Amino acid sequence: MSDKVELSENALGRLVPSVVNGRREVAFQGVNAHRPQGRKHAPSIRSSADYPANGDKRVADLETALKKCGVKSGMVISNHHHFRNGDIVALQALQTAARLGAKDLVWFPSASFPCQAAVIELMQQGVVHHIEGSMNGPLGDYCTAGKMRGLGVLRSHGGRWQAVQDGEVEIDIAVIAAPTADPFGNADGSHGRSACGSLGFALADATYAERAIVVTDNLVPFPCIPWQIQGNHIDHVVVTDSIGDPAKIVSGTTEITKSPDRLRIAEYVARFLADAGIMKDGFSFQAGAGGIALAFVSYLKELMRGAGVKARFVRGGSTKYLVELLNEGLVDYILDGQTFDLHGVASIASNPRHVATSPFTSYNHQGKGNFATFVDAAVLGATEVDVHFNANVVTHSDGRLLHGIGGWQNCLFSGCSILAVPSVRDRIPVIVDRVTTLVGPGELVDVVATERGIAINPRRTDLLQAVRGTSLPIRPIEEIKAEVEKICGGKPKPPALGDTPVAVVKWVDGTIIDTVWQVLGPFAAAGGGGGGD
Amino acid sequence: MSDKVELSENALGRLVPSVVNGRREVAFQGVNAHRPQGRKHAPSIRSSADYPANGDKRVADLETALKKCGVKSGMVISNHHHFRNGDIVALQALQTAARLGAKDLVWFPSASFPCQAAVIELMQQGVVHHIEGSMNGPLGDYCTAGKMRGLGVLRSHGGRWQAVQDGEVEIDIAVIAAPTADPFGNADGSHGRSACGSLGFALADATYAERAIVVTDNLVPFPCIPWQIQGNHIDHVVVTDSIGDPAKIVSGTTEITKSPDRLRIAEYVARFLADAGIMKDGFSFQAGAGGIALAFVSYLKELMRGAGVKARFVRGGSTKYLVELLNEGLVDYILDGQTFDLHGVASIASNPRHVATSPFTSYNHQGKGNFATFVDAAVLGATEVDVHFNANVVTHSDGRLLHGIGGWQNCLFSGCSILAVPSVRDRIPVIVDRVTTLVGPGELVDVVATERGIAINPRRTDLLQAVRGTSLPIRPIEEIKAEVEKICGGKPKPPALGDTPVAVVKWVDGTIIDTVWQVLGPFAAAGGGGGGD
Repeated sequence: MSDKVELSENALGRLVPSVVNGRREVAFQGVNAHRPQGRKHAPSIRSSADYPANGDKRVADLETALKKCGVKSGMVISNHHHFRNGDIVALQALQTAARLGAKDLVWFPSASFPCQAAVIELMQQGVVHHIEGSMNGPLGDYCTAGKMRGLGVLRSHGGRWQAVQDGEVEIDIAVIAAPTADPFGNADGSHGRSACGSLGFALADATYAERAIVVTDNLVPFPCIPWQIQGNHIDHVVVTDSIGDPAKIVSGTTEITKSPDRLRIAEYVARFLADAGIMKDGFSFQAGAGGIALAFVSYLKELMRGAGVKARFVRGGSTKYLVELLNEGLVDYILDGQTFDLHGVASIASNPRHVATSPFTSYNHQGKGNFATFVDAAVLGATEVDVHFNANVVTHSDGRLLHGIGGWQNCLFSGCSILAVPSVRDRIPVIVDRVTTLVGPGELVDVVATERGIAINPRRTDLLQAVRGTSLPIRPIEEIKAEVEKICGGKPKPPALGDTPVAVVKWVDGTIIDTVWQVLGPFAAAGGGGGGD
Repeated sequence: MSDKVELSENALGRLVPSVVNGRREVAFQGVNAHRPQGRKHAPSIRSSADYPANGDKRVADLETALKKCGVKSGMVISNHHHFRNGDIVALQALQTAARLGAKDLVWFPSASFPCQAAVIELMQQGVVHHIEGSMNGPLGDYCTAGKMRGLGVLRSHGGRWQAVQDGEVEIDIAVIAAPTADPFGNADGSHGRSACGSLGFALADATYAERAIVVTDNLVPFPCIPWQIQGNHIDHVVVTDSIGDPAKIVSGTTEITKSPDRLRIAEYVARFLADAGIMKDGFSFQAGAGGIALAFVSYLKELMRGAGVKARFVRGGSTKYLVELLNEGLVDYILDGQTFDLHGVASIASNPRHVATSPFTSYNHQGKGNFATFVDAAVLGATEVDVHFNANVVTHSDGRLLHGIGGWQNCLFSGCSILAVPSVRDRIPVIVDRVTTLVGPGELVDVVATERGIAINPRRTDLLQAVRGTSLPIRPIEEIKAEVEKICGGKPKPPALGDTPVAVVKWVDGTIIDTVWQVLGPFAAAGGGGGGD
């Protein structure tokens, strides 16, 4: 970062830049305090007269497609991350743009992964100016080291939709890898050898980008059904040998944690839902694909079976465990944002009750409501949480930016948001005096469940009341914190941070909730347990 | 119409107004000649903080919903026409707005029907200023008599999407009748006692309106699956006893014509598709729900069976006859824009190969292509056609405006557009010197099939070549015309038209292709055989 940055204190007392990558920003004003102005972003009107009348939008290769889209320096190039660490299309798109002479691109993935570490070279060469999107692993490290020319901008899945919808990020060219597509550009994620399930993260890109390219390794004759992405949004179709490594796109299996501590956390959370009366006929919940979350689903299933309780819907990331709930009739619907294993893919491809969703339906805060606010309970991770329940999901205690926000911020709006976290990681306490990065305001975090007990946010007197007299180990968060510090020999060492912002964390309404600061000195070893991707 | 109207001649030599209802318009410039400028319409950004966190958007009644939407004079109120002549919600919405004191409303239905004749009173009372949308029957009569304060604006289904998308019509409040919905506003047309199949005509309204209300008589718990309309676009939900007369929403049965002449036309068209080589493996076609079209499908099915040919997709309006093709494996997919009978409803509700579409996917000319341009053949009606193949589908030879355009203009872009028309109706020749209203340019009309023979547009030398030597009665259109005039005792009497425009007909690109003029004197008896609705 070069220029002197103007900072202001936001409603949570965090210092945040007033201008980010040349754009004036609004500081976080409080939960539900900010109201948007103006109108949604509107892409240019096109004419069918300029598209092939026979519906065949295929071009020779990605280079031709990018040329036809007029790729040039300074553009915003977007990709989805449904192929996770098996993706090859995003990197190809940026490298192809580089060959065509583009510089100073903004890369706008819905998340980035270690398989895209070569983007570091593109940043060093001046091809990519900066990344707006989750940075998992090496790209996060590069950013935290202060080497990126622009500021990173981290958004939740809902916040990414909001930013595109509201024109904060204007996508010039969306490059959408699709496991199945037809020549018109209709695309589906649930079939084909690179099947990844839902393609929901690409929906904002298709809808709002000026130009959109579908890249597929499985072309079918029109119509590609279902069309998760509609060809009417697509300019060009590229057929290629491979769009990703199927083995890394989805897991063959997703595994429940084997750690006794983590299993205990999962069990506590399941019992909490039952004892607090949340687990009742017609209820709903969301849980991710982490080891604790999977174990939680497994425990909850037993409790549901035992009590004869059926859920109305569960929100994915879908896994084998959610699919089992669906197939056993313990839930009516899976509303799936991203599909994590082969069981999820097979289910979404064939079961009409396993429904692909998008950040628009599930998470967009700046719309006419979104699903996340009426999910009864969401079970989430965190890297740190303080005694006011403020939580961090993107950086570790050493300051390194290693995780994306995923749907985490959005899920905090659920009826009962539960951070299911070990109290200690790598001998570092997870409950801290001050979170390194404040990603979720404490007023939205209802429960912190650790292996040492469950802390309920004092604001939630209803929950405290509901579990009174149960066998659950309900404890004040301060007490758990003190106990852990005793065991670990004190509080975590404060990170060695400079005064240079390297990234900002957006809240769901587009305001800035916190700043990620440059980390000074050599990096500590990475821990685990972060947010979504 | 009061003010003096400025007229100009468009590319087809038709006089059209330069200003329509206060808005400057572009005269038709030729097929694929006009290119749009600017950006799509963008509705206001909302905040989930202003919507119920529990996802329950229900309000007491339509009056409450309209009040909450801030209904006031001069607003544009929109409805879909999926309930056809069984609809009651549209009229209720306008009458409720009237009770709330609104005046000078623009009513913007996707089509209007005789069941909405009471809108005439609302126009007389000053509540409704004018109608933009198809006017079938009495409302068309009222318009043609010059009694509407504003100009009617007729658009194709694709043109209606285009007008909304491009901001030519800014919908203030969309009132969407839904056979099934959940409290969040997710809505589906394919289930419930008022099931109508697809809800595609309401999609533009939901997407682009400032405010949207879903009215349902079949509330289900969230999530309503499928959600043809997404609750994230909806402001309020109203649950009511009845949204329509199910007996009139869809037909129990759709019937093939019994007229020997019309059966002959249908057979000619089916044989034409076979002999011209259009009917081949993987082909596609569109046919409506009129008597000739149904008979055509029936004949074509026999030919397909006989030849062992399978279609890739057919475009609906779906009927029993298309559903039979699907169920017999003679076609892979029905892409359905509106569902015409109970067989269609049952099929779209249960068969994943029977897919709901919208005017965005199927017809929108000002997008990145649309399905209509690559359907191999479309079989359509017409009220009049001239020897240059220019055709009329909205007015009769007496000048009366009695039909909407439907998808007719959009379907003219198909690989082979066929007007299947009797050569005579009510003793009036259908082939005329000059069509009363020019709705479709002759260069897009490929074939006119009558019971007296099949005329191929001389531009289509490929088709003339393809059917050379077959037993089909291919004849010059002038020859058929002369024969009919001899039988009828001459050309049709020219209509008694004044020089006052009462409505304009838009082309698919938003330009004005023709004007509907006030009819002078008493009305002649109505004929039949118009376009879509």
